[in-house]
Amino acid sequence: MNHVVGVDIGGTKTSAALIDRTGEVGRTVTVPTPAAEGPRAVLAAVADAVRRLGGGPAAVGVGSAGVIDPAGGRVLSATDAMPGWAGTDLRGGLHDLLGLPVAVENDVHAHALGEAWTGAAADSRTVLLVAAGTGVGGSLLIDGAVHRGARTAAGHVGHLAVPAAAGRPCTCGGRSHVEAAAAGPALYADYRANGGRAEVTDLRAVAALAEEGDALALRTLERGATALGQALGGLANVLDPDLVLVGGGVAGCGEAWWQPLRAAFAAELLPPLRGLEPVPGRLGTAAALVGAGLIGWEAAAWSTTRCDR
Amino acid sequence: MNHVVGVDIGGTKTSAALIDRTGEVGRTVTVPTPAAEGPRAVLAAVADAVRRLGGGPAAVGVGSAGVIDPAGGRVLSATDAMPGWAGTDLRGGLHDLLGLPVAVENDVHAHALGEAWTGAAADSRTVLLVAAGTGVGGSLLIDGAVHRGARTAAGHVGHLAVPAAAGRPCTCGGRSHVEAAAAGPALYADYRANGGRAEVTDLRAVAALAEEGDALALRTLERGATALGQALGGLANVLDPDLVLVGGGVAGCGEAWWQPLRAAFAAELLPPLRGLEPVPGRLGTAAALVGAGLIGWEAAAWSTTRCDR
Repeated sequence: MNHVVGVDIGGTKTSAALIDRTGEVGRTVTVPTPAAEGPRAVLAAVADAVRRLGGGPAAVGVGSAGVIDPAGGRVLSATDAMPGWAGTDLRGGLHDLLGLPVAVENDVHAHALGEAWTGAAADSRTVLLVAAGTGVGGSLLIDGAVHRGARTAAGHVGHLAVPAAAGRPCTCGGRSHVEAAAAGPALYADYRANGGRAEVTDLRAVAALAEEGDALALRTLERGATALGQALGGLANVLDPDLVLVGGGVAGCGEAWWQPLRAAFAAELLPPLRGLEPVPGRLGTAAALVGAGLIGWEAAAWSTTRCDR
Repeated sequence: MNHVVGVDIGGTKTSAALIDRTGEVGRTVTVPTPAAEGPRAVLAAVADAVRRLGGGPAAVGVGSAGVIDPAGGRVLSATDAMPGWAGTDLRGGLHDLLGLPVAVENDVHAHALGEAWTGAAADSRTVLLVAAGTGVGGSLLIDGAVHRGARTAAGHVGHLAVPAAAGRPCTCGGRSHVEAAAAGPALYADYRANGGRAEVTDLRAVAALAEEGDALALRTLERGATALGQALGGLANVLDPDLVLVGGGVAGCGEAWWQPLRAAFAAELLPPLRGLEPVPGRLGTAAALVGAGLIGWEAAAWSTTRCDR
């Protein structure tokens, strides 16, 4: 058995890939996540994707949206994007469907683990990762391990109040949180609220305009990037990381976004940290699949050990 | 040898105490820190305080202001409150003066280690400590160990930008940092800048007025506590701690300060963290001495091991 399957369950799509012992990503399938149909449908879609890959995998590792308890195998909480997902026995449900060892993890933690295994974080001891997309999530790795915290809820970088997001209502019910200014939907809403053209229908199009020098698009990206940079710079002062990784769809907005991100980050840093810069990951969207593969291999090893007894 | 000496070097005073194997604090001496006279004078004052305690200690543990490298024994950086302190060979210098094994640590980390040894954090795995005094420092303990970060600079909770400190210039050169709103000098300056009476000469007097219901004093404490609560609540979302400890002189300002601190903290928390509250430590000003004692015992054990070879 030369492969495990790494799975990345998001609110809109789910990917599954064969991952070998070196972390190399092989055959991959991507399907829509039937989130609205409930957890049973999601688990069935995952199992179906795993079966379609073939390859006789040794185990399955899963990175999923939501707060995940890797020890208990369950989803502890999730947003409205996945109704009923909270409480789902992710590990048990998939094990029943597939008959394979299964390990589960939050998707952003899986992303960080992937970069630490074969990507940009391979040589770092303290890694702060932020993933800016539909929301702003994060993960803290210390000596290669996920810092989970007391309720396995650690990593919520998006819910830090910063001056550049002052007053904005956040999806969590709080105010002034970085997610409320820096997440993809917030950026697009900002563009439209400030007079952006209706025919510009998504953030990718805003980023394309920014690249052409459109003033409103540039200002929009700058505002969001500044909020995120403030949060990451302040966190760097607290955590003193080797590496600050920034991923997620919003990080694909180009230099018009990265330049103000770096500037806002640098403005926060205490003297010992000067020179540290946020950088993109190396694995792109495959990072969570690779990290899921890593915990899949751990589940395979643990399962073998258990069977040997 | 039933004792070590724990030393707490601050910008204005230095304390040294005998600490037994259970962390109990015995005889203690406190002397002014001759900071203006430079590092040699400070080291001599520490050595003198240690000698005055007597008791034949097995080792000396030191908690000091500044960024400290415990492995190299040196002060990496320090504020203007201690001119020339940066670069000082704290461990080597004290070892030469005293002929005893010496271990060194940042004072806020020592504070956290003290609370973890015999105080409020004894049963916690992830501990976020903030010490609000002349500055706002912090320490993060994970599984009982100080999280040092890549440059041993971790813990600077005071240099996180928060909306409640928006625009305020910070001692570090940054803006909107929590220290600029929540440190003792900032609180007192605020009180005076908003029309506070000149005969109220320090923060303690402002706190006393607040207890009597003085509106300006109450507003002053509330503003500072809100900035700190915002920062700690946001950090709790990132770190998911078991325990959030708040110490330092400012934490002695009573319920007029603690109530808005708790409120601002609670307003930030994500659902899984609700119910978590910042609490005071149990050891008060002795915490750093106890933590210094702990690393003193470690130095004693290490020294014995080495001599056995």
